[in-house]
Amino acid sequence: MPGFMKRVSKTAGLVPGALVYVGEEKTGKPKITVIDYDEKGFQEKEIASVEECFPFKETPTVTWVNIDGIHDTEVIEKIGRHFNLHPLTLEDIVDTGQRPKYEDLEQYIFIVLKMLYCEEGTCDITVEQVSMILADNYVISFQEKEGDVFNVVRDRIRNAKGRVRKMGADYLAYSLLDAVVDGYFLILEKMGDRIEDMEETLVNNPDPAVLETIYGLKQDTIFLRKSVWPLREVVNGLTRGESDLIRKETHAFLRDVYDHTIQVIETIETFRDMVSGMLDIYLSSISNKMNEVMKVLTIIATIFIPLTFIAGIYGMNFNPENSPYNMPELNWRFGYLGAWGVMLLVALGMLIYFKRKKWL
Amino acid sequence: MPGFMKRVSKTAGLVPGALVYVGEEKTGKPKITVIDYDEKGFQEKEIASVEECFPFKETPTVTWVNIDGIHDTEVIEKIGRHFNLHPLTLEDIVDTGQRPKYEDLEQYIFIVLKMLYCEEGTCDITVEQVSMILADNYVISFQEKEGDVFNVVRDRIRNAKGRVRKMGADYLAYSLLDAVVDGYFLILEKMGDRIEDMEETLVNNPDPAVLETIYGLKQDTIFLRKSVWPLREVVNGLTRGESDLIRKETHAFLRDVYDHTIQVIETIETFRDMVSGMLDIYLSSISNKMNEVMKVLTIIATIFIPLTFIAGIYGMNFNPENSPYNMPELNWRFGYLGAWGVMLLVALGMLIYFKRKKWL
Amino acid sequence: MPGFMKRVSKTAGLVPGALVYVGEEKTGKPKITVIDYDEKGFQEKEIASVEECFPFKETPTVTWVNIDGIHDTEVIEKIGRHFNLHPLTLEDIVDTGQRPKYEDLEQYIFIVLKMLYCEEGTCDITVEQVSMILADNYVISFQEKEGDVFNVVRDRIRNAKGRVRKMGADYLAYSLLDAVVDGYFLILEKMGDRIEDMEETLVNNPDPAVLETIYGLKQDTIFLRKSVWPLREVVNGLTRGESDLIRKETHAFLRDVYDHTIQVIETIETFRDMVSGMLDIYLSSISNKMNEVMKVLTIIATIFIPLTFIAGIYGMNFNPENSPYNMPELNWRFGYLGAWGVMLLVALGMLIYFKRKKWL
Amino acid sequence: MPGFMKRVSKTAGLVPGALVYVGEEKTGKPKITVIDYDEKGFQEKEIASVEECFPFKETPTVTWVNIDGIHDTEVIEKIGRHFNLHPLTLEDIVDTGQRPKYEDLEQYIFIVLKMLYCEEGTCDITVEQVSMILADNYVISFQEKEGDVFNVVRDRIRNAKGRVRKMGADYLAYSLLDAVVDGYFLILEKMGDRIEDMEETLVNNPDPAVLETIYGLKQDTIFLRKSVWPLREVVNGLTRGESDLIRKETHAFLRDVYDHTIQVIETIETFRDMVSGMLDIYLSSISNKMNEVMKVLTIIATIFIPLTFIAGIYGMNFNPENSPYNMPELNWRFGYLGAWGVMLLVALGMLIYFKRKKWL
Amino acid sequence: MPGFMKRVSKTAGLVPGALVYVGEEKTGKPKITVIDYDEKGFQEKEIASVEECFPFKETPTVTWVNIDGIHDTEVIEKIGRHFNLHPLTLEDIVDTGQRPKYEDLEQYIFIVLKMLYCEEGTCDITVEQVSMILADNYVISFQEKEGDVFNVVRDRIRNAKGRVRKMGADYLAYSLLDAVVDGYFLILEKMGDRIEDMEETLVNNPDPAVLETIYGLKQDTIFLRKSVWPLREVVNGLTRGESDLIRKETHAFLRDVYDHTIQVIETIETFRDMVSGMLDIYLSSISNKMNEVMKVLTIIATIFIPLTFIAGIYGMNFNPENSPYNMPELNWRFGYLGAWGVMLLVALGMLIYFKRKKWL
Repeated sequence: MPGFMKRVSKTAGLVPGALVYVGEEKTGKPKITVIDYDEKGFQEKEIASVEECFPFKETPTVTWVNIDGIHDTEVIEKIGRHFNLHPLTLEDIVDTGQRPKYEDLEQYIFIVLKMLYCEEGTCDITVEQVSMILADNYVISFQEKEGDVFNVVRDRIRNAKGRVRKMGADYLAYSLLDAVVDGYFLILEKMGDRIEDMEETLVNNPDPAVLETIYGLKQDTIFLRKSVWPLREVVNGLTRGESDLIRKETHAFLRDVYDHTIQVIETIETFRDMVSGMLDIYLSSISNKMNEVMKVLTIIATIFIPLTFIAGIYGMNFNPENSPYNMPELNWRFGYLGAWGVMLLVALGMLIYFKRKKWL
Repeated sequence: MPGFMKRVSKTAGLVPGALVYVGEEKTGKPKITVIDYDEKGFQEKEIASVEECFPFKETPTVTWVNIDGIHDTEVIEKIGRHFNLHPLTLEDIVDTGQRPKYEDLEQYIFIVLKMLYCEEGTCDITVEQVSMILADNYVISFQEKEGDVFNVVRDRIRNAKGRVRKMGADYLAYSLLDAVVDGYFLILEKMGDRIEDMEETLVNNPDPAVLETIYGLKQDTIFLRKSVWPLREVVNGLTRGESDLIRKETHAFLRDVYDHTIQVIETIETFRDMVSGMLDIYLSSISNKMNEVMKVLTIIATIFIPLTFIAGIYGMNFNPENSPYNMPELNWRFGYLGAWGVMLLVALGMLIYFKRKKWL
Repeated sequence: MPGFMKRVSKTAGLVPGALVYVGEEKTGKPKITVIDYDEKGFQEKEIASVEECFPFKETPTVTWVNIDGIHDTEVIEKIGRHFNLHPLTLEDIVDTGQRPKYEDLEQYIFIVLKMLYCEEGTCDITVEQVSMILADNYVISFQEKEGDVFNVVRDRIRNAKGRVRKMGADYLAYSLLDAVVDGYFLILEKMGDRIEDMEETLVNNPDPAVLETIYGLKQDTIFLRKSVWPLREVVNGLTRGESDLIRKETHAFLRDVYDHTIQVIETIETFRDMVSGMLDIYLSSISNKMNEVMKVLTIIATIFIPLTFIAGIYGMNFNPENSPYNMPELNWRFGYLGAWGVMLLVALGMLIYFKRKKWL
Repeated sequence: MPGFMKRVSKTAGLVPGALVYVGEEKTGKPKITVIDYDEKGFQEKEIASVEECFPFKETPTVTWVNIDGIHDTEVIEKIGRHFNLHPLTLEDIVDTGQRPKYEDLEQYIFIVLKMLYCEEGTCDITVEQVSMILADNYVISFQEKEGDVFNVVRDRIRNAKGRVRKMGADYLAYSLLDAVVDGYFLILEKMGDRIEDMEETLVNNPDPAVLETIYGLKQDTIFLRKSVWPLREVVNGLTRGESDLIRKETHAFLRDVYDHTIQVIETIETFRDMVSGMLDIYLSSISNKMNEVMKVLTIIATIFIPLTFIAGIYGMNFNPENSPYNMPELNWRFGYLGAWGVMLLVALGMLIYFKRKKWL
Repeated sequence: MPGFMKRVSKTAGLVPGALVYVGEEKTGKPKITVIDYDEKGFQEKEIASVEECFPFKETPTVTWVNIDGIHDTEVIEKIGRHFNLHPLTLEDIVDTGQRPKYEDLEQYIFIVLKMLYCEEGTCDITVEQVSMILADNYVISFQEKEGDVFNVVRDRIRNAKGRVRKMGADYLAYSLLDAVVDGYFLILEKMGDRIEDMEETLVNNPDPAVLETIYGLKQDTIFLRKSVWPLREVVNGLTRGESDLIRKETHAFLRDVYDHTIQVIETIETFRDMVSGMLDIYLSSISNKMNEVMKVLTIIATIFIPLTFIAGIYGMNFNPENSPYNMPELNWRFGYLGAWGVMLLVALGMLIYFKRKKWL
């Protein structure tokens, strides 16, 4: 659960609006790329200093500024000053402990999202905060580190694929949102696979390691829930369409993202139910196994303990010479065989009893 | 859980509105049938190419175009272009990972449903997506594969049974919806039977196989819930009657379907409660059985272990000849019988103790 | 769970509005009684054919037509045609798998209720569907079989007891509804008794039979919930008072029924909580008992196993004549007594240990 | 759970509005006291017959009629007739199975409350129904039996303490309500003590008696919930301030009672959570203890069973004289000591094994 | 759970509005500090008697009166009289059993909060009530004891850091609220650490002490929930912005606190889920361990009990001299070795059986 509680010790007690980066230590300049396009033209460049992207603010074309790396609060501050962002917006951008949220500040819409990745191999889930500023003709997006999740959008702009080049900044913001939500499906797919694997193990060969995996899955669903639930309000806020920044044509697309978000949430809930069902089954199957172990012990012990007792009887050393009542059986012709006979009868009786109890 | 997560790897990152079929691989042309009717006349034909159904769009009669097979995205695209459907509608038609939904696009109403089948024999539940376009005077329905669930509607049209021939396209859409919801009752009936069977086994003869069945039933209710819950909103959306495409006379019928949907949902919830109650009972009865096993073991062991000890005492070889204190009992006249007596007393005492503890 | 899923196989796929009786097979004519009254007069008669009740429709007096037996769909159909009922209303009357519902069709109000009976002796709960048509000056009630639940209302009309003769058809409908809800209290009282009995058994003498009773109680609460919950909406629908058919004076009485309904629902929820609490307690007390069984076994085994071992030692046949090291104890003067002494010490040590562990 | 289901057998099937007292059998006249006051004066008297209180109805002063004992339905009926109360109000007053409710009948407000008492010593919770009629210038309160819960209010009126003498009948009603809600805090405090005691026992010395106490606490929270939850609606109904009978100055005080009610409800919910948490802990600690018992048994058995086997071996009577292969160990010089050596090694090995498993 | 139920015995039955301090016994005068500032100037002083702060009420500057210690009800009363506070407000200030609440009394806004501290070392959570009066140009805050949580705000005012000096009393109130909510994050961080520690112990080395810690964590989440949930309504009440006392510029900041409150609540819910997941895992792992113990016992017992029986057989003393059928094996040449052979075979068979059962 990375980033759960990081916020605290660094920012508690600070002036509201103070910019404090709370993520992992990092150095190096953030990478800033600008893509500027309209239906006819398109240019893309990586810029060295923030100031280079300021001129684009005034152009009628759609501008997308993407900042990879939010640890350099000076850059964020400059952008904030130039694009006229509220101090609390800036605080939220660098505070990676934020929950997904949507805020309509009239001049611009501010969106915070959580991007989820599945680590290669282990499939531990890591989380990255993505913020977006959507204004009339530009979008500014902030990522914690370089990632390839927005590449599909970049490609579409470059190749004028789909309708992205024909539409405004709101459609661009939608495309980025869609890319993030699509990422959730990949996580869900992998979780689904793990659950299916688990189900088979559970039925065929439940062992204590299962427990740890179930626990891991449970924690993952709790974590996913926490990350994705607020997204519903975010997308819903956009869909309600109360802001002028979102054109009418884009609403159908936003509703589509909303449907996907609901689908993600429902799938998480389903996973939760399934995982908690698996725990019940696991507990039952442990009980079952213990029951079986107990039965084996009981059968063996219950058959042999009486037999051992009988053998013990005739191992006693009472002296037959001193008294005719002292173990006369020892001198009978068929004493030994008789003893065996009794023992076999006892064993047989027990077996029949167990058979009837359905323990065998 | 077929079709749970299929959507992902194929469509993530694509241009929104891209048509990608995500179901099982399939070849062959989709089967397209057109039924055109009004109160007086009726014609039905299977057509070879999509274009043949386009003329019906303009006729005043009610037209029902049914497409079995949505893997041929080209066909879907042609229909979309001719009937003027939104690209996202087309995307949803071919994306079988969709959740049930209702969308009012003014020109037409778009409905996505889940049809549930019970496999013969095993009664595994399979799911098929059905989409419907309801416009002023036509209905277009899309199925993943040929099925007989709509045959009852076809028969009624052919034979002018009921009021379907006298009413409009909205009544036709209602009839198809009703047919799908009726299918759910069949599933529920079969699940109800399985639960009743299970109940009897549970009481008479609980064994570990029960566990697997309970787990299966639980997963089935989770799966059903996920499929049927959103249906409520769908039918509710239709019933609210905000669209002009749905005439006033049809509302009473839609309310009827709504009632059935609620009944389906409530029955699923009831099944959920019952299945989870069964798991509790199963766990309790395992505990009970283990308790009984333990008691048998304890009774046998507790009676015979002391007896064996006594027998062991008199099997010791202390030499009575060296000392009068060394096991004088061995030479007593009634030593052996006395030993038996002591053993019987111990056994009897134990039995009385168990009797009092109500273990016998 | 009678009548849970009956609807399915008989009606699925039929024309909506088709009249299909889905209850138990039955023959014989339904019994139809007509009571016609106003403040001054009163007449009551059993009629042989439906048509006889038609004239009453037009009279200004309040008319109550009661039909016992809904298997004869022809009778229902005739009534439907004469009293101008919607086909779906008729379908719902004969379909006994309906959930309680309230429908305001302007001309009349249609109510479906579930009457619950406790079977004598076993106290299995059986359910009967009661439908009512409330129009301006008549009430038509449909029961599956003859019953005495409405007799209290009949008596009041006959004897002009209470205010029923002074008020309209809406008050009559209220009285019938009240009679049905009063019936629920009887069921709840019997369930309450069973729960109280159970509680005492649980504390004094929990045995596996308890488990079956708890399971039965649980299923009963699930079943009751399913039957009574929708009633809330029904009575609420009537109470909201949007229909002209319900006079202002009747509202206070309907609110009273509403209060009773809430009370029934709350009591069912309370029973649910109590029954599930009982299962927890039962599970705990099984665990407790198993713990006690284990302790007895452990104490006996832990004391006697070491003793038997010591006895076993001196039952070995090492030859003391061949070597002075071979079991010299056997020839010691106090060997035997010493062995006893050691054994007593071991036993005593064990007992002290158990005492300290608070197992004794 | 007294009074849970009493209503049933006595009142089911009666004419609505019939006055039937359903509480415990009782005789004797109810005690009626009248307190009449305004800012200047105050008089208090116990009256012998109901009629004596009727004149106060017309005076401009605030009048409080308190009736202790509602089993005498004739008294109630007289009051009802004189003060013009609705028959259903009267029915609710004497029907002690009522749930808390608030009804605004324009002429007067009718309130039903549940007063809870903790029995001395056992702390079983008993419940008493209190009804109140609040009209323009009088309050009539009905109690099942004489109690001292309203004495604090009486004292304040007598001594002109607080603002009660300066305000109207609505403030008096508020004061009575407040006195009832204050009584709940006493119950909660006692329950809180029991829970705290329990917690300590749970940690230090869990025994089966704990189970019964937990069950008792659970039933109590269920019962409290059922009694207090509807109170929220009652106080909320009063607070919403839609009735003219409640003056503006009283609203702040009613909101205060509302806050207290919420606090009571939240505390009950917290107790519920805590009690159910205690059951979980209890179950876990039983499992823990059983585990420990099992370990002791296993350690003793696992060490001594192999040793006893070895001793058993050398207790066999194979004849060494007939064959050199028959138990030559018996004649070895160090046979006996060797046997002991082997046994000690086995025991030591076992102990090391258990040490490593952390069982010791 | 300190302060849970303290309210009761001291205040029940008192006149509403009576000032009764219900916290721990305390003596000494409360410490009163006044900070008065505007954009230009600033003064701060500790005053000896309440009256000294009264003149500030009329100044146009923002005044913050902080009272540490509410046990001296006389001081509270004086303030109440001078600042014209409602008696119920005063009652709530000194009644530390209050739940967080927001009340808009038009003249001023009254806020009750719970401040949570983590005790050094043990990390038991203690709670302190903080009340605030927000009027047009002053804020009065009441704390149970001196604390440093408001120091950050004091520092900002002293040093004119941030915008606090430029804004009004509403921003000051916001700053105090923010300081309290920031304190929650510290608690959550510590709880998060404890949960993480616990998780590791759970996996590596679950022992009974774990149970107590889990129980403690569970009680803490219950307690936190109870304290923080109502805060949501408080902040929401402020954010809705219906009061004129809260300026438009402050809304964005209040929304920020609201977001933090939601984050705190969600984290508590997540902790709840995680802790209850841990209990499940703990229970499962106890079962697992018991299973393992049982297996060891069963394997040892099941192997050695039959062997001991065989040894017992040949320890019997049947006299071979009296009958050729009496234990002839004892005189066989390979009798002893044969016996060993049989025993080894039995042991081997058992081992293979366990291997197949996967118990080894």
